[in-house]
Amino acid sequence: MRCTLLRRIFPLSLLALAHVPIAFAAESAGDPGTHNIASTFLWIAFLLVAAKMASLVERFGQPAVLGELIMGVLLGNLVLVGIPWIEPVKHHEIIRFLAELGVVILLFQIGLESNIQKMRKVGVRALLVATVGVIAPFVLGTYIVGPLLLPGLQSNAYLFLGAALTATSVGITARVFRDLKKLQSPEAQIVLGAAVIDDVIGLIILAVVSAIATEGTVNFAGISLITLKALAFLVGSIVIGHVLAPRLGKLFSMIHTGVGMKFTLAVCFGLVIAGLAQQIGLAPIVGAFAAGLVLEPVHFRYFKDPKVVSDVKASVEKADSATRQRVLAAIEPHADRHIDDIIEPLGHFLVPIFFIMIGMGVKLETLGNLPVLLVALGITAVAFVGKIVSGLAAGPVRKSLVGWGMVPRGEVGLIFASMGLSLGVLTDKLFSVIIIMVILTTLLTPPILTFLLRRSELHGSRH
Amino acid sequence: MRCTLLRRIFPLSLLALAHVPIAFAAESAGDPGTHNIASTFLWIAFLLVAAKMASLVERFGQPAVLGELIMGVLLGNLVLVGIPWIEPVKHHEIIRFLAELGVVILLFQIGLESNIQKMRKVGVRALLVATVGVIAPFVLGTYIVGPLLLPGLQSNAYLFLGAALTATSVGITARVFRDLKKLQSPEAQIVLGAAVIDDVIGLIILAVVSAIATEGTVNFAGISLITLKALAFLVGSIVIGHVLAPRLGKLFSMIHTGVGMKFTLAVCFGLVIAGLAQQIGLAPIVGAFAAGLVLEPVHFRYFKDPKVVSDVKASVEKADSATRQRVLAAIEPHADRHIDDIIEPLGHFLVPIFFIMIGMGVKLETLGNLPVLLVALGITAVAFVGKIVSGLAAGPVRKSLVGWGMVPRGEVGLIFASMGLSLGVLTDKLFSVIIIMVILTTLLTPPILTFLLRRSELHGSRH
Repeated sequence: MRCTLLRRIFPLSLLALAHVPIAFAAESAGDPGTHNIASTFLWIAFLLVAAKMASLVERFGQPAVLGELIMGVLLGNLVLVGIPWIEPVKHHEIIRFLAELGVVILLFQIGLESNIQKMRKVGVRALLVATVGVIAPFVLGTYIVGPLLLPGLQSNAYLFLGAALTATSVGITARVFRDLKKLQSPEAQIVLGAAVIDDVIGLIILAVVSAIATEGTVNFAGISLITLKALAFLVGSIVIGHVLAPRLGKLFSMIHTGVGMKFTLAVCFGLVIAGLAQQIGLAPIVGAFAAGLVLEPVHFRYFKDPKVVSDVKASVEKADSATRQRVLAAIEPHADRHIDDIIEPLGHFLVPIFFIMIGMGVKLETLGNLPVLLVALGITAVAFVGKIVSGLAAGPVRKSLVGWGMVPRGEVGLIFASMGLSLGVLTDKLFSVIIIMVILTTLLTPPILTFLLRRSELHGSRH
Repeated sequence: MRCTLLRRIFPLSLLALAHVPIAFAAESAGDPGTHNIASTFLWIAFLLVAAKMASLVERFGQPAVLGELIMGVLLGNLVLVGIPWIEPVKHHEIIRFLAELGVVILLFQIGLESNIQKMRKVGVRALLVATVGVIAPFVLGTYIVGPLLLPGLQSNAYLFLGAALTATSVGITARVFRDLKKLQSPEAQIVLGAAVIDDVIGLIILAVVSAIATEGTVNFAGISLITLKALAFLVGSIVIGHVLAPRLGKLFSMIHTGVGMKFTLAVCFGLVIAGLAQQIGLAPIVGAFAAGLVLEPVHFRYFKDPKVVSDVKASVEKADSATRQRVLAAIEPHADRHIDDIIEPLGHFLVPIFFIMIGMGVKLETLGNLPVLLVALGITAVAFVGKIVSGLAAGPVRKSLVGWGMVPRGEVGLIFASMGLSLGVLTDKLFSVIIIMVILTTLLTPPILTFLLRRSELHGSRH
């Protein structure tokens, strides 16, 4: 009550929040607008430490992201064994925001570690993979396995099921490739490219199926507009970014050439493109990835070298030329990799929150209903097969890596499911089936992908 | 509506928020629980870029924090010239949380840059400064200038005015010293120590004055308990932290020795102590500072050197011994300073948000009421004098720097003001007076402190 009053009277009271004595904190508990900062701090620390403890899985050759997901599943289901105090964090608005920011930062980092030339090289194959990866599961789900396993539903239900099977969630796969230091492989690049294209296609499918479900007909002009907007945004942000980034770098370096400015410019560029992407209807992570793709170290050449680089360079000024060259060669990558490096800690802070929260979202009891589970396993098989098939379109690379990389459904599958439910198209049972499919594709992909990567390295096989 | 439904059915829907198509985003606008992530991203980018543009003040020898405050004041009052679209961010819950996290990270960083030995050396003087800095403004405000400038109020009103004048807000001063690279000076150390002590005293005063205002009497047992708890927490967290930190470092290094683990451990340690501090009734920033104070590079010796250090070391293995020594000497500080370094980007991301939000909280129209303004100027003079006097207790250092360093009131002053208002003790006029005092002490201190620092350097004077 006091807090609300205060906030109304004087916005400087945000200052007060930085120092809220116990009396205030206790009172604000009933006020949904005022979070208890202390408990938010403790939640963040709890989630981060839990995530780091889970990185023990690396000892068993598994990517850290698998540990974070499993830890999340464990924590999120402790309520089943009578430990309820973790539940509130699932709905904690600020923690959820940090998680969302985390996956945006992750895809931005992944974009930074790639570049447009590389993506362009795999562009056509990525387009093929995305197209097959949409058509195969859609046809299988809508026309074959859906009616087979769940007979007697209205046709729109199968439509939504098929649509939910099409979408690729790139966060998981990108993390696995990154954890295993395989982000530069052609397979990873194809998956990244295909996921971006998939998101545009997903946007179109979403518009189409919801038009069919609500109006029974499709407005092609409207759909074309959505498609055009999305494509124009992606191409536009890459082209304009390419032109703008060096100029912005030069402009802001005139104000300040320090690390803080460099960091701020890069992060804000990513956030703006991610935010605009969402405004256009694309995933923010697609925008963040595009932003990272556009930024190159050369855009920041007006900024100071990191201090360590200049210190080391100064220390070998008088050395013999062989030593000098060796030292300069050792320090060189650290000058260039500097944008990645300064964004890394932000990733350490935010990214694990995203993956542990994903794990926490898995409701194990969903898996307890046997008839539903059996149908779900069938649909999940379709989800796997439909995407693995898409790998065949990837050309002369390890096709199975590409195919499996496309498997996780995550976000978009859930959006279809929830939209279908709220439109009254999906039954509760079909909704649960889709949820289980999303869970299984999300949780099973990391270990399988890891296994395939390790095996292909052992055998040196390319296919 | 759909989002709410979804959230109730399946918490994995947080995933959905990472990819919310336009339809959802639009619909969720009416749902107070679901922020539009895109707009939050854009706000963050907007505030950070604005803050960085304001760092132009450094060209005029001013600390960056002054630029951020001024930019905040400008943005926060654009509504006066008919530009209202910035207003919503003042109440944006997530932005406010990020601001609060920012000042906690700042004080944690400042704690890391200091250490217990240094603080202990200035301990007694800090205690003296804090004590004088509480007594002088309290007596002046409650018994002399308050009744003089605002005659005829009930005595409790003067009591709250005096109490609001006692508190020191360390964030501003610490930033100024840090921006000007003077954090290691004895004056800065004394101010930091005194601010921590001040916070404990402030807690006691808050308990006392609110007891007097509500019950007319003071429960000394209760007050003693609060005091003891606060002291026990501070001493306890430093002692226990001192014992625990190296053991935790060793323990977690057994899971992983990478930079991510090191970063997570350090940040989580800071967040936990900050969170606990708030639970006990202290400012989170006091906890964060104590946590930073306890952590030493040696606690992290089980973790890997940053890659740049090992790369450079490897590159001079075969070099002649003189060159080797020179290069190793150049790289050495970068191995040790590594905790500070990896937390720095988090600071770049969060700290400017705090200061720009403080600036935005300043309502320029408050300064428009002439009679109120005149009284406020008188009270502000007391606020200045009361703290500047405290510098005299600082011993053989530049006393004026210490005194001015204690001037900003910020958080705690506002808490007193809002509590007094909600208890019906303060009149609206007196409330406004306190607000103006807080604004002026906050905005005037950075340039004055900068001037004093530069002058004392020019003249090499110590007093």
